[in-house]
Amino acid sequence: MYNDVEKAKDKVAEILNTKSENLIFTGSASEANNFVIKGVALANQDKGKHIIVSEIEHPCVLGPAKELAKEGFKVSYAPVDSKGRVKMAELKKMISKDTVLVSIMTANNEIGTIQDIKKIAKLVKKSGAFFHTDAVQAVPYLEIDIKDLGVDFLTLSAHKFHGPKGVGLAYIDRNIKINPLISGGEQNDGLRAGTIDVAGIIGFSKALDLAYQNRDKKIAKIKELRDYFLKEITKNIKDVHLNGHETFRLENNLNLRFNGVEGEAILMDLSNHGICVSTGSACSAKNLKTSYVLQALGIDSKYLNSNVRFSLSKNTTKAELDYTVKN
Amino acid sequence: MYNDVEKAKDKVAEILNTKSENLIFTGSASEANNFVIKGVALANQDKGKHIIVSEIEHPCVLGPAKELAKEGFKVSYAPVDSKGRVKMAELKKMISKDTVLVSIMTANNEIGTIQDIKKIAKLVKKSGAFFHTDAVQAVPYLEIDIKDLGVDFLTLSAHKFHGPKGVGLAYIDRNIKINPLISGGEQNDGLRAGTIDVAGIIGFSKALDLAYQNRDKKIAKIKELRDYFLKEITKNIKDVHLNGHETFRLENNLNLRFNGVEGEAILMDLSNHGICVSTGSACSAKNLKTSYVLQALGIDSKYLNSNVRFSLSKNTTKAELDYTVKN
Repeated sequence: MYNDVEKAKDKVAEILNTKSENLIFTGSASEANNFVIKGVALANQDKGKHIIVSEIEHPCVLGPAKELAKEGFKVSYAPVDSKGRVKMAELKKMISKDTVLVSIMTANNEIGTIQDIKKIAKLVKKSGAFFHTDAVQAVPYLEIDIKDLGVDFLTLSAHKFHGPKGVGLAYIDRNIKINPLISGGEQNDGLRAGTIDVAGIIGFSKALDLAYQNRDKKIAKIKELRDYFLKEITKNIKDVHLNGHETFRLENNLNLRFNGVEGEAILMDLSNHGICVSTGSACSAKNLKTSYVLQALGIDSKYLNSNVRFSLSKNTTKAELDYTVKN
Repeated sequence: MYNDVEKAKDKVAEILNTKSENLIFTGSASEANNFVIKGVALANQDKGKHIIVSEIEHPCVLGPAKELAKEGFKVSYAPVDSKGRVKMAELKKMISKDTVLVSIMTANNEIGTIQDIKKIAKLVKKSGAFFHTDAVQAVPYLEIDIKDLGVDFLTLSAHKFHGPKGVGLAYIDRNIKINPLISGGEQNDGLRAGTIDVAGIIGFSKALDLAYQNRDKKIAKIKELRDYFLKEITKNIKDVHLNGHETFRLENNLNLRFNGVEGEAILMDLSNHGICVSTGSACSAKNLKTSYVLQALGIDSKYLNSNVRFSLSKNTTKAELDYTVKN
């Protein structure tokens, strides 16, 4: 019997250019990243006990890396340049025969900088190490063709493309050993125990499908609005600087440095006008720690708290942006 | 701002008689059990490296226990009597000064046998060990008053009481050290990273609330139907025996041994008539392994494949049961 969950998985597999048996749905991308990072490193530690992550990875990649460090793994942090791109020569030097896994995100959640994942995957895999990319921020701004990218592991999150919260996905190469994070029943061939989230999986599939429909048009509109917004801001406000890369950048992301102004003050002020922006990432909203992503870019410490991230979506309007600039 | 998620959590806390800060929602009860078993054992291993689980625990408790065994923990399996009740004297003997965690399920998923959790919790905690109960099968058949039960950790699953799939819950005593299973962002004070499943949490809360409304009436109806069904079966079929306990038993559960008949044959036959039953548990449906739960009861090996589990719910009707007996 070909049921709705199988149908939904097949659709996702088709969009990502892989087979549905390689897809494991999780309760979040955080779970998917924990599963891949810890599961691959621990299952293959006979190959070596060294992993590499970039210094601007999401906390749910850095967290498992730190856990592995406690268990005797050596963890190296690949540096990025002033625009957030991984320094390829440095990464190459870091890889040794003990390197079992390298994890570099496709696009950064704070500054939107996009990496050349295909090139990085090629470099890593040539060395014999496995490669994972956290592609949570990429949909629908980048096409995700798993075969073409040449990655071994890739993770996604439904709510980042207007799907339901509480659903993540791990693409895994089934030829590579991996330990379950959640062990028990034999769902997902024992790689993730637990009753599957039927509605969540179907919602993920539908949202992914919709995200890639009329993609070019949607993205062009978001980019146009983003660029318009940036122009209006720089016209009206002095000493504003773009954090991250001008071109290798997600179209929905605008991370700006307002020299001499507290980012939190801007956030509060805009919030009072009903405008939601961020000075860091959502998962660290509860504290006011300085962004390690911005630090990694080498921004002068006196400006590290002067940054605001504006996120646009397919639902953002020009009127909203004009209203924001005015306030 | 008091939002809908906080409201939902407060409602769950009120029903379970605890505080909402002690509640961590997960993607499944399997995740919750993996989190508690591994998280508590690993975080408190300075106290000792011994854990005890009953031999009829769910696979998502036994799985983590086996993982801990690989990491150098000693795992003891508390035996049960012929009706599935934990042998208290044996359990008492097993507990030593190295015992860090004991996990005994409130009610079994295959045979429905209910344990005296309050008594077990008291025994365990007197020894200084921590106590967890997997209460997934208990709602709404048993009232769950966490303070009265005296447990340190308790886990639930929404879809077992007609809530959404993909949502579990871990009650944790915040005074006891526990490692996150999913590390990263600072959601749940860093104890479970990841964007929270807003709809899932609200659905869990609503379903739990509804489950306990008119509880006595609903359960009485289910019990009446179950007892009627058993009477009809024994009247019409020879050599039928009840697995599990006659009285310390979930009202919705009927696990029967049809001596001399293959359980799978009965399942297939009933399935052809549109009736869904089980010969094992859902999570091991893909294989035909003999039930370790029935084995633990000491059932003669020649009858181990002659068992069928009938599960009733508030939606079961007498007509359905009559139809089943007829076929």
